Amino acid sequence: MSGRTTYADWIAVDWGTSNLRAWAMRDNQAIAEATSDKGMGSLTKPEFEPALLALINPWLGTAKTPVFACGMVGARQGWVEAPYGTVPCKPHGQPFAKPQTADPRINVHVIPGLKQTDTPDVMRGEETQIAGLLAAMPNFDGVACLPGTHTKWVHISAGEVVSFRTFMTGELFGLIAKTSVLRHSVGAGWHDEAFATAVTDTLSRPEAMAANLFAIRADQLLNATDPGRAKARLSGLLIGAELAAARPYWLGQNIVLIGDPTLSEHYATALQTQGAPSHIADAKETTLAGLSAARALTQEPAE
Amino acid sequence: MSGRTTYADWIAVDWGTSNLRAWAMRDNQAIAEATSDKGMGSLTKPEFEPALLALINPWLGTAKTPVFACGMVGARQGWVEAPYGTVPCKPHGQPFAKPQTADPRINVHVIPGLKQTDTPDVMRGEETQIAGLLAAMPNFDGVACLPGTHTKWVHISAGEVVSFRTFMTGELFGLIAKTSVLRHSVGAGWHDEAFATAVTDTLSRPEAMAANLFAIRADQLLNATDPGRAKARLSGLLIGAELAAARPYWLGQNIVLIGDPTLSEHYATALQTQGAPSHIADAKETTLAGLSAARALTQEPAE
Repeated sequence: MSGRTTYADWIAVDWGTSNLRAWAMRDNQAIAEATSDKGMGSLTKPEFEPALLALINPWLGTAKTPVFACGMVGARQGWVEAPYGTVPCKPHGQPFAKPQTADPRINVHVIPGLKQTDTPDVMRGEETQIAGLLAAMPNFDGVACLPGTHTKWVHISAGEVVSFRTFMTGELFGLIAKTSVLRHSVGAGWHDEAFATAVTDTLSRPEAMAANLFAIRADQLLNATDPGRAKARLSGLLIGAELAAARPYWLGQNIVLIGDPTLSEHYATALQTQGAPSHIADAKETTLAGLSAARALTQEPAE
Repeated sequence: MSGRTTYADWIAVDWGTSNLRAWAMRDNQAIAEATSDKGMGSLTKPEFEPALLALINPWLGTAKTPVFACGMVGARQGWVEAPYGTVPCKPHGQPFAKPQTADPRINVHVIPGLKQTDTPDVMRGEETQIAGLLAAMPNFDGVACLPGTHTKWVHISAGEVVSFRTFMTGELFGLIAKTSVLRHSVGAGWHDEAFATAVTDTLSRPEAMAANLFAIRADQLLNATDPGRAKARLSGLLIGAELAAARPYWLGQNIVLIGDPTLSEHYATALQTQGAPSHIADAKETTLAGLSAARALTQEPAE
């Protein structure tokens, strides 16, 4: 170990609406991590710096430590607005935003998201995962699917994001499973066959969604369907509809899935029912690779 | 006025999950009405009779007054289970259920709902509106659409319910408008053209629903869309998807809409974009006509 007084070379931050995740980085390896529920959605502007310091303080020495943050932290309601880049463009083609900080030990860079004007769409955070994907595979030409609350399908070519489309599938699943009349029918467990059948049902007749949803409830009332089977069917109906609409994205393309491992497996299974192979990338590693790429761009010397 | 000691000949009750509505009836005309929030969903079995008496007590004399109730009051979790009739069947073809009551002044009849086994589906309450429609038009051959939280499309022929299909459209609208990320974008107001365009968009590409939903948010972020326009677009997307799936029900049919007047107007407008005319029936009058028809079936003498 050198004479460094800081624990971390730099700090990587993924700051979404609901959560804040930070990693102490050395040689682009995470050597410590910390999380809190201080997501952007729960903070006013003066609360961002203390929320960050509460997590990363143990990693700071007296010298200035660079911090690279992606996600909703750069929204208008976030710490500092980082204006969107407009596709087609490189994932990290825009200047990073720099909030004023009171603590002299940190130098914070907030990474802008991307927008699309033609079919209006926005992303914040996913651009960094795409930068991470491109760091590992600079010549990648194909589609990244980032499943989650707001699943993104992203067409990538020649190192740029060409176009993208967001689906509210994850949020709809949560609302329907937890809040709608289906909450009485959907429960723990899973059923592979029910999932695959539902994917196929809705791919062939996507418009029947709202009726197929209520049928889950009716089926459970009349036939006492297993709650795990109902959950798998609900998930399959929603993901199947998404695949129907996203077909121009994935048909005949290289597909990389970046997201929660279980959810990514479900997407891979659904794509497989359509004869489309895909590859699952580790979401955390991809995020860290993207934040590392952002840091490399600034060419800021390690301290 | 005769020597009757009761104010009402009989009492009509529409007892749903969230609300309880009662009408004092004389000569099949409502002469008084009362409502409370004591819906089936908030009551345990012993609480049903007091909840009803709290509303109808002013209308009761010393003689026994018949009460006819439709809706979720007849569910397994309701006051008394009224087992479903199975379609195809008459809307009121099943025996009514009779809960035990402590108060000797009431004689309560609970009207069963209908179920469909082929494509599993259920209704409770709507069968009574259909009975009301058939009381007014005994030879009706066509389709009743009952828009609401769980919209029903019902094929009616030869005095029977032939088949039906339930869509969770209303519930999805409420969840998405109030709970999802679109709550930031959807607000008061309305925009006829945005509604009609959304209906057409989703009828032509129903599978794009989840993407079109997020686009409402993105459009508002990037273009500061009017909240009333966003609301109309959300409604149009959901109703358009429903119409796409319900096409076998309404195409080339007589269509009667029975529901909230504003919502029924929206359905009528959406159908009109597809060249399908429809007729709007008054929901309350139709319910009362159906409850009157139920009373006539029992042939219980007025007291």
